[in-house]
Amino acid sequence: MRIRDPIHGTIPVSDPEKAIIDSRHYQRLRHVRQLGFGDLAFPGATHTRHAHSLGAMHVASRLFGAVASQSNLPEDVQSRFCTAVRLAVLCHDLGHMPLSHASERIAPPRAALKLPAWLDATAEGPQATHEDFTAKVLLDSSLTPLIEQHFGPLGIHADAAVALITGAKPPKDPGFTHRGVDWMPLLRALVSGELDADRMDYLLRDSFYTGVNYGRYDFEWIISNLNPAVKDGRAYLALSRAAAFAFEDFLLSRYHMFVSVYYHHTSVNFDHMLRRYYEESPGEFEIPADPEAFLLCDDAALWYTLRRSKNRWADRISMRRGFKLLAQFTERDTGYDLDVLRSALVAAQLEHYVVESHGVLSKYMGEGQSPSLYIMDVSTGRLTEVAKYTPLYQRYSGAVRLTRVYVRPDQIDAARSLMSRLLGQAVQS
Amino acid sequence: MRIRDPIHGTIPVSDPEKAIIDSRHYQRLRHVRQLGFGDLAFPGATHTRHAHSLGAMHVASRLFGAVASQSNLPEDVQSRFCTAVRLAVLCHDLGHMPLSHASERIAPPRAALKLPAWLDATAEGPQATHEDFTAKVLLDSSLTPLIEQHFGPLGIHADAAVALITGAKPPKDPGFTHRGVDWMPLLRALVSGELDADRMDYLLRDSFYTGVNYGRYDFEWIISNLNPAVKDGRAYLALSRAAAFAFEDFLLSRYHMFVSVYYHHTSVNFDHMLRRYYEESPGEFEIPADPEAFLLCDDAALWYTLRRSKNRWADRISMRRGFKLLAQFTERDTGYDLDVLRSALVAAQLEHYVVESHGVLSKYMGEGQSPSLYIMDVSTGRLTEVAKYTPLYQRYSGAVRLTRVYVRPDQIDAARSLMSRLLGQAVQS
Amino acid sequence: MRIRDPIHGTIPVSDPEKAIIDSRHYQRLRHVRQLGFGDLAFPGATHTRHAHSLGAMHVASRLFGAVASQSNLPEDVQSRFCTAVRLAVLCHDLGHMPLSHASERIAPPRAALKLPAWLDATAEGPQATHEDFTAKVLLDSSLTPLIEQHFGPLGIHADAAVALITGAKPPKDPGFTHRGVDWMPLLRALVSGELDADRMDYLLRDSFYTGVNYGRYDFEWIISNLNPAVKDGRAYLALSRAAAFAFEDFLLSRYHMFVSVYYHHTSVNFDHMLRRYYEESPGEFEIPADPEAFLLCDDAALWYTLRRSKNRWADRISMRRGFKLLAQFTERDTGYDLDVLRSALVAAQLEHYVVESHGVLSKYMGEGQSPSLYIMDVSTGRLTEVAKYTPLYQRYSGAVRLTRVYVRPDQIDAARSLMSRLLGQAVQS
Amino acid sequence: MRIRDPIHGTIPVSDPEKAIIDSRHYQRLRHVRQLGFGDLAFPGATHTRHAHSLGAMHVASRLFGAVASQSNLPEDVQSRFCTAVRLAVLCHDLGHMPLSHASERIAPPRAALKLPAWLDATAEGPQATHEDFTAKVLLDSSLTPLIEQHFGPLGIHADAAVALITGAKPPKDPGFTHRGVDWMPLLRALVSGELDADRMDYLLRDSFYTGVNYGRYDFEWIISNLNPAVKDGRAYLALSRAAAFAFEDFLLSRYHMFVSVYYHHTSVNFDHMLRRYYEESPGEFEIPADPEAFLLCDDAALWYTLRRSKNRWADRISMRRGFKLLAQFTERDTGYDLDVLRSALVAAQLEHYVVESHGVLSKYMGEGQSPSLYIMDVSTGRLTEVAKYTPLYQRYSGAVRLTRVYVRPDQIDAARSLMSRLLGQAVQS
Repeated sequence: MRIRDPIHGTIPVSDPEKAIIDSRHYQRLRHVRQLGFGDLAFPGATHTRHAHSLGAMHVASRLFGAVASQSNLPEDVQSRFCTAVRLAVLCHDLGHMPLSHASERIAPPRAALKLPAWLDATAEGPQATHEDFTAKVLLDSSLTPLIEQHFGPLGIHADAAVALITGAKPPKDPGFTHRGVDWMPLLRALVSGELDADRMDYLLRDSFYTGVNYGRYDFEWIISNLNPAVKDGRAYLALSRAAAFAFEDFLLSRYHMFVSVYYHHTSVNFDHMLRRYYEESPGEFEIPADPEAFLLCDDAALWYTLRRSKNRWADRISMRRGFKLLAQFTERDTGYDLDVLRSALVAAQLEHYVVESHGVLSKYMGEGQSPSLYIMDVSTGRLTEVAKYTPLYQRYSGAVRLTRVYVRPDQIDAARSLMSRLLGQAVQS
Repeated sequence: MRIRDPIHGTIPVSDPEKAIIDSRHYQRLRHVRQLGFGDLAFPGATHTRHAHSLGAMHVASRLFGAVASQSNLPEDVQSRFCTAVRLAVLCHDLGHMPLSHASERIAPPRAALKLPAWLDATAEGPQATHEDFTAKVLLDSSLTPLIEQHFGPLGIHADAAVALITGAKPPKDPGFTHRGVDWMPLLRALVSGELDADRMDYLLRDSFYTGVNYGRYDFEWIISNLNPAVKDGRAYLALSRAAAFAFEDFLLSRYHMFVSVYYHHTSVNFDHMLRRYYEESPGEFEIPADPEAFLLCDDAALWYTLRRSKNRWADRISMRRGFKLLAQFTERDTGYDLDVLRSALVAAQLEHYVVESHGVLSKYMGEGQSPSLYIMDVSTGRLTEVAKYTPLYQRYSGAVRLTRVYVRPDQIDAARSLMSRLLGQAVQS
Repeated sequence: MRIRDPIHGTIPVSDPEKAIIDSRHYQRLRHVRQLGFGDLAFPGATHTRHAHSLGAMHVASRLFGAVASQSNLPEDVQSRFCTAVRLAVLCHDLGHMPLSHASERIAPPRAALKLPAWLDATAEGPQATHEDFTAKVLLDSSLTPLIEQHFGPLGIHADAAVALITGAKPPKDPGFTHRGVDWMPLLRALVSGELDADRMDYLLRDSFYTGVNYGRYDFEWIISNLNPAVKDGRAYLALSRAAAFAFEDFLLSRYHMFVSVYYHHTSVNFDHMLRRYYEESPGEFEIPADPEAFLLCDDAALWYTLRRSKNRWADRISMRRGFKLLAQFTERDTGYDLDVLRSALVAAQLEHYVVESHGVLSKYMGEGQSPSLYIMDVSTGRLTEVAKYTPLYQRYSGAVRLTRVYVRPDQIDAARSLMSRLLGQAVQS
Repeated sequence: MRIRDPIHGTIPVSDPEKAIIDSRHYQRLRHVRQLGFGDLAFPGATHTRHAHSLGAMHVASRLFGAVASQSNLPEDVQSRFCTAVRLAVLCHDLGHMPLSHASERIAPPRAALKLPAWLDATAEGPQATHEDFTAKVLLDSSLTPLIEQHFGPLGIHADAAVALITGAKPPKDPGFTHRGVDWMPLLRALVSGELDADRMDYLLRDSFYTGVNYGRYDFEWIISNLNPAVKDGRAYLALSRAAAFAFEDFLLSRYHMFVSVYYHHTSVNFDHMLRRYYEESPGEFEIPADPEAFLLCDDAALWYTLRRSKNRWADRISMRRGFKLLAQFTERDTGYDLDVLRSALVAAQLEHYVVESHGVLSKYMGEGQSPSLYIMDVSTGRLTEVAKYTPLYQRYSGAVRLTRVYVRPDQIDAARSLMSRLLGQAVQS
């Protein structure tokens, strides 16, 4: 089967993959938009995790193919590795909850999912994350026998896919060792790492659908400069030095997408209101722990619930009547003093809320982790960890922080004049 | 306000327009996909009529601006005409029903809408069309006072917008005459004509989102070759001869979009199943005649109903388990005999249905209509009706006809071998 | 080696190919612009045959790879066929003369090239064509031993490349038969046929560099619908019916590029003046029959000569002071009578010339030729000649005819008023 | 007149501008490639300063239009300012020398140009720069009366254009003051500044023609966030804070274009060889001080001379047989010691040269200059110098340094093994 895609052209799909795509769990992603509330800010951004996952699977092939062509892996091994990576990437978002990460706040306890013990190391807290749900769907749902039926004969099982997605080590060897070299680190880096298929697809796709330019980077050049690097019996992903600038550009693309799209003040605003709704009307909408019940838990179901709710935040969300943005600033914007502003708003009895968006751009840079990407000097074979090679990495994989103050719509004029009294006067032009 | 759009970049929006866009009627279009079931065939094509209408409004400005720059209309008149055209285009899809034109089959009787008598000439039959609903929403809904409040002071009223959309003549003069020249034919051509803002946007947009190339045409060249042509006291839209090839290309773009996207066998298949659902379970889903009740009548509501229905076609649609395509052919495919094939399928007791997609590509070419586009020889000023100028026009504004035969999935193998016995054998390669 | 290309991204090049590209004959193409005088009309269109030939070679791989994946050719045979096709396409333009096809008028007699007798069937007249020069360079120049050195060991010789380019049959079997099937017709179709690598690249490239949209077609869809079709022991190129619309679009792209770019009135004008120059100053610039002398015969050399010439047409070309366009029309432009116009210009003593551009778009449609493309019904394997399948083919592979009248610049105003008296008056707006 | 351009679509040109474009001085730019030797590395990059200057002029209109729409300048003043900026940008590259900045090394003494005294402040040394030539052509050549004839009646004179290009202050007031506000700083910033029309065009254009992605930035967003900012009676260019990220992205685009295109090892290599040629064969090719003689001083003339020269570097350049790249590194590449490498090459008698590419990316950041760009907080009107607002600015407007070592082709293998002994061994994979 071939699927048309506006980003990658034509995406070839194998018969086993088609069986997964036709499953109810995968089709659910048709009703989960990639950017949650993002289309409120960018009307064109209606794309779904369904299309993204197909695209990311396609990118994974391109990445693996480039690496494999520089290796001496025999063709049958290449084929098996590639199939495993494609499956993992295709399924990596199956556990995403409706509309926004805000929905993870009402996820059931992780314990309710009864995940196998070997996944305990991946727990991020008492609540189940979307990754936990992904693991559940792969390992213990109506999808599980389909995977076994179609991929088992190829030597690929659901736990291997989960291992690639989560980084956890399953009790049964996933079978990624060839001639004494363990290819797991490299394969894992393609599924989830500094330069993985997920990021490479979503930057292009989100950029395409929102209409902003930031997400474009030099895809072909990066692809054609990938190499395997074997060190101490393990294979890692390495990028030729010639593409180090392209990687920096990729890194900055991602940073700029965060500040301008993912943390857009409208998305952030509606995320906040959804959180308030969940806090004030607990139980009205729920994320079921059962993977088959989870099938109906999509954007449409949440919108349906919000539209019929009596909760004031639900009403604001459905009517698209959010609080209005009064001010936004970053560390670099001198002259803003949040405490002063907030006190003044309180004193003037102007209803408002403050949202701070901050996040660490790279979860791969923490202590004690093996690096998911090396820079390779191809003329000497020398490897350098990407974090040590590019000075931009440290800066742009670090934290982003944006502060926004929103005010009730009928009070926005009062708030604005209050703020301009606090902040000084406009320049004439 | 400026809105980001992946097709046009940045779309400027005036305050009165913003008031319309923020209305509940316009926001409803966020939940009406432009291509109905199209994303089942093209996963990227999740775009909505919300974004399309904004884009078309933007195109309308470009078109009108180009024409106006070649005219001697004073600036205030230009501004009023442009505002009217933009409003009409912005609102032209407000009456679209959920998911597909198939839903028009269950529309209420036109009489139930109680439209004013001057619109009677636009009736296409006893049932209300989406255009009737658009007129209803503009003339008699919660949107109507908003239009009057924001556009009335500019001399633009809802009936003028309806006149531009439908071509009907309202009792009150819409005010498009200047110095004895009636600009209505030209303005109407920009809203609804051979080369209108609607088509110019949707070809680009549908092409962009599906990932097919056919919808691209030479937008800038066409824009920069538009002229007003005054004849017998009326202003018409005219394209310089230098852009006649660009217009032909536009025409063919549209033709190719029809055969490859709008009449894609998957869309056609699901449209057919939806029609069967409506026939077999009448009343389960309804299109309300009341414009405020119509607000909740969107894709999400129809999907919600389909998912919970016991009807077998609804089930097939929700599970995405359509009948399988057995054969498709056009007049040019020799060797296919539908009657023979159908008889054989009946004889073999293979459940199937046949869908014929045919449509007239141009509704503007009929008898007795004044042409919506002229070709102008700028060195002599000579005007030729587009239908007489380009031989392609007649051919590609004519009828398209595609025949498909679909078979119940469990019987497709039997049907295929039956068909290959009928049609001959495969070539070796 | 990998070469960056704005159309195809990264073009991989093998070591033997690199040797050819680094040769003096290939580097000559850096100074032969693809569109001759085209950049006078489209300032962006400065691209060269150097870049085009690289791109076409890349397209050839994509085409052959698509076909081969549908065949059962063993890998080593695939590799050899692909290498041969790539070499032929890479070299197909080596004999192009400077600036324009007008230069072919001053080419030496074909006999002076002393081509081998088996190429006699390809002679188009007494004068050498660019294809004759290409054959000469491949078979008998400083490039010949390079080809033998780098491609001989792979079983590919210069005469095979010439056979693929010209369609002539060399005395020594070119080696394209596998298991009794002769693949020559298919390979030849990829090098030179209705849907060949040359056309597929130049449409995209010329469109890209001129900034017109017409040359874009659905590259990926066509590629993914190619098949080999074996008939009577010979393999042909066949396109699945599903891509017939894409082929029509390709056909029209080409037609529109002809009328708007290749036959642009400015190019046509300068071509005409160059022809006049050659007629009036014979011998001032010459095309040498010797392939090594031919190395210096490029655009730069012709410009150099034109700038220093005393000939009045050379002066007009260098100063970019062409005659002015008075009128242009096709058959469909009623009201123009060339004889009347010409007589009037003569009577008024206004210096002018008339250029008729007409050409047959497809040289592949003539009598007695085996078709270079079939349409295949993949469910039955039935083949139809493309000319019989698509009604557009006949029309748009047929003749194009454009008539232009140009007048001496200082007389253009007089000529214009004369013409407007003849043709009628301008419309008011 | 409208000119087709692949970057900007259709570029409108006024009649006075057409007169300049049709002049011999402007037409000379058809034969001066934008990237000099760049097409040796990027075969697609054959674009000329002719097309770039047209594009930059178009960008200038977009920039000025955006600023003017936020100002209260009356329309006639807007029109005059815009015309002046367009003229300056159109002409800003008229003095460029053939092929590369290396040619500036053989430029005549600045004194030979006899520029007026008010330009003395812009002298960069004793030799004439391309900017000096631009000033000469504008103020004292066959172009000068054309400018006066076509732009004088609009109140725009050549010295005003030179003032905008160079920043120098002509004795006669250039007429950019309106109601006591001097708009010179803003207009100058559009012609030559941190965010000027020149850079904005060349990044897009060079990126487009080379096929690398780095040069793309968010053009529309930047345009729609430009403002005039009046301070102490002078108008400056200011960018809304909302586009600060887009500006950073623009900055990095430029940085990445430098390291990957402008300082590509092939361009740098041929520049170096050209310099060696000029050193070893002085006087063989000359840059004439007389502006009419300068008309024939283009790429074609230099290529012509190089091809016929006996000089060994000229021969290497014409034959495209440069020394081979042995090593390249930046500060961040540990393990490279240039002195050690160089000594080893000398000891082994391997002929080589070292080229260090370093440059300051922003000439606008020096001491004592008024900033060419501010960041504006539109809700308060507060202005911050761009250098103080964005931390990236300082880093990426700073210096770039790349070191390359090239070796004579027949010695490259020996040099490589020598280097790999010095640098360690390759990794296995």
